[in-house]
Amino acid sequence: MTDFTATRARFDLPDGIVYLDGNSLGPLPRDAAHRIARTVTDEWGGQLITAWNRAGWMDQPARLGDRIARLVGAAPGTVVVGDTLSLKVTQCLAAALQLRPDRRVVLSDSGNFPSDLYMAQGLLAALGQGHELRVVAPEDVEAAIGPEVAALMLTEVDYRTGRKHDMAALTAKAHDVGALAIWDLAHSAGALPVDLTGTGADFAAGCTYKFLNGGPGAPAFVYVAPDHQHVAPLLSGWLGHEAPFAFDPDYRPGPGISRMRVGTPPVLQMAALEAALDIFDTVDMQALRARSQHLGDRLIAAVEARCPNVTLASPRDPEARGSQISFRHPEGYAVMQALIARGVVGDFRAPDILRFGITPLYIGEAEIDRAAETLADILDTAAWDRPEYKHRAAVT
Amino acid sequence: MTDFTATRARFDLPDGIVYLDGNSLGPLPRDAAHRIARTVTDEWGGQLITAWNRAGWMDQPARLGDRIARLVGAAPGTVVVGDTLSLKVTQCLAAALQLRPDRRVVLSDSGNFPSDLYMAQGLLAALGQGHELRVVAPEDVEAAIGPEVAALMLTEVDYRTGRKHDMAALTAKAHDVGALAIWDLAHSAGALPVDLTGTGADFAAGCTYKFLNGGPGAPAFVYVAPDHQHVAPLLSGWLGHEAPFAFDPDYRPGPGISRMRVGTPPVLQMAALEAALDIFDTVDMQALRARSQHLGDRLIAAVEARCPNVTLASPRDPEARGSQISFRHPEGYAVMQALIARGVVGDFRAPDILRFGITPLYIGEAEIDRAAETLADILDTAAWDRPEYKHRAAVT
Repeated sequence: MTDFTATRARFDLPDGIVYLDGNSLGPLPRDAAHRIARTVTDEWGGQLITAWNRAGWMDQPARLGDRIARLVGAAPGTVVVGDTLSLKVTQCLAAALQLRPDRRVVLSDSGNFPSDLYMAQGLLAALGQGHELRVVAPEDVEAAIGPEVAALMLTEVDYRTGRKHDMAALTAKAHDVGALAIWDLAHSAGALPVDLTGTGADFAAGCTYKFLNGGPGAPAFVYVAPDHQHVAPLLSGWLGHEAPFAFDPDYRPGPGISRMRVGTPPVLQMAALEAALDIFDTVDMQALRARSQHLGDRLIAAVEARCPNVTLASPRDPEARGSQISFRHPEGYAVMQALIARGVVGDFRAPDILRFGITPLYIGEAEIDRAAETLADILDTAAWDRPEYKHRAAVT
Repeated sequence: MTDFTATRARFDLPDGIVYLDGNSLGPLPRDAAHRIARTVTDEWGGQLITAWNRAGWMDQPARLGDRIARLVGAAPGTVVVGDTLSLKVTQCLAAALQLRPDRRVVLSDSGNFPSDLYMAQGLLAALGQGHELRVVAPEDVEAAIGPEVAALMLTEVDYRTGRKHDMAALTAKAHDVGALAIWDLAHSAGALPVDLTGTGADFAAGCTYKFLNGGPGAPAFVYVAPDHQHVAPLLSGWLGHEAPFAFDPDYRPGPGISRMRVGTPPVLQMAALEAALDIFDTVDMQALRARSQHLGDRLIAAVEARCPNVTLASPRDPEARGSQISFRHPEGYAVMQALIARGVVGDFRAPDILRFGITPLYIGEAEIDRAAETLADILDTAAWDRPEYKHRAAVT
């Protein structure tokens, strides 16, 4: 069993805040500040260059990868940490195209995070081999998987609506036609159980600063199924070399997942991520999922009971969504600013979506109820209708 | 004038250590620990998601880029921070090849850092357009610059020997034949004056964890000359998009250097880098260069006077080298381990090179003299000839 009171105590959250934006940036684990300070002062300051070996910095991408592997249903030695999600997705796509040299279609959907689409557009243009990025509506993906598809490239959970694809079914369909499946786990890792091995996913990547709470700018992770680890990586950097410190003039890919490494890893960010992953050591992902679904249902019920002018944008079926609940409101941006001003922190996604990320590690029924009541009051009193809430700054 | 006693006081160096490895990992700036702690606790912990705007995280890559620009002779708006050096060099190379679509040769040299060569090998293979990576000896580069060359891709200062290319002359020669020049400034930025604008360099990239002291895994920087900023970037991520938070399905490159951004920047690493760059605000790069050359000359003289079995691997002419002095010794690995055991920290590069990085910000004559005396004593007494010094771990 997972003790969610205990996990709540392991985060340093500001007093009076209901934080429902852990799907964008997870909060600070209490241990992270100490862990980072130790890395800065004792390791960087005290051990200097020798910390690469003495403090284990060099192997940290593999160690953290193995810890994330457990959370996404992957075997040890199949996940490594580094770079950013955009880059790791691109490595996955390039590898998949190498494995399907006679096919020219990359299939994705309009619910994918735009950066995945942008990176694919850039890669396909650079390759200059006539590949097509075919983007269909999320509900049309299954029917669009045909024998011309080299790679299916999807984000499991839609960043706007929380709609969750059926990873097992779509991967199976892809394999039926000889295509490969690449899964972006940005809104899955740490949010719900993922079974990369069981579903037969070929490649996956995710970020660690959302539900994994690794901190702002925390590195990404990448998964390559054991059968595909022989592929030569795009972005063939020295730390993916078989012997980085031999300084050979020619690239020879390192063993297994190590070849997906590129350059020098972000040591300070990895220290924060390590502290964040410690919390997950105490968490059963099935228990987390059950609690997330319960809290999501509760938020939907409370909002629908009290807020007639918002409409649910997320699937009502808890099995069909990730760990966020989204609503639409025509003045969504201003409404969210009013919520934030009252200490209920979600976020807004154009054109009209209010997003509420639900992380049971630190969110419970009291927070859900307060969020719904605050939203209802703001709408009842039109408290959002103020110029300062309508002025749009850049938002994340 | 630069006060090097004052700059020395701004680093947190362990007692009793002579640190001559700042060319691999610069030491901890005293202010960095506080700056990082503030970013972790007050910004991440206290401001959560709102820190992306309130604490200025989102614009930090551009702000830090402009500060680095001053140190490498570049104009504001031409440098941005992010990712790793291997990735930024690759973006430069891809851009250069776009600008020279009818040419098929990338010219580099055997003194280039291997990761640059690996990344180029990978990129050229992925492009599949018959490009050749032509690698010549450093002294043969100038003669090899011909009209078939699309891009000259060099590291200004050789990571093993410290030999410095003539950036102005080689860039001019490249331009004479219609080629573009890409400079890797890994061992230049913060080590010596660089004049990207004056030399007419087309592209450049560098890392910030060496002479700039940005910390382990600090992000890289990339420079694109104003005339080339229209080129579509390889690695077209969302933060290089014209309007990242519009979440358009199609990539449209952002203005100027911003399009070289890819994914979410490493906020904790950037906090450390910011503190490190504060020190450079007090530094005149010409004064730093003069002192570096003086200290290098002094190390060469002292070692040559007392250590008959080591040979100088760096250029004797201080104008022809960067800010490191390298020597060769057949038992170089063991000798370096013995030096480190006595508190003189340089590093080893295969097959036989002892490297000593010289950073006048915290190294003076006393440290140089102690390093030379310690080396002499180790060689005089064969103190290196112990099994524990000969056993090779991974080294950076």
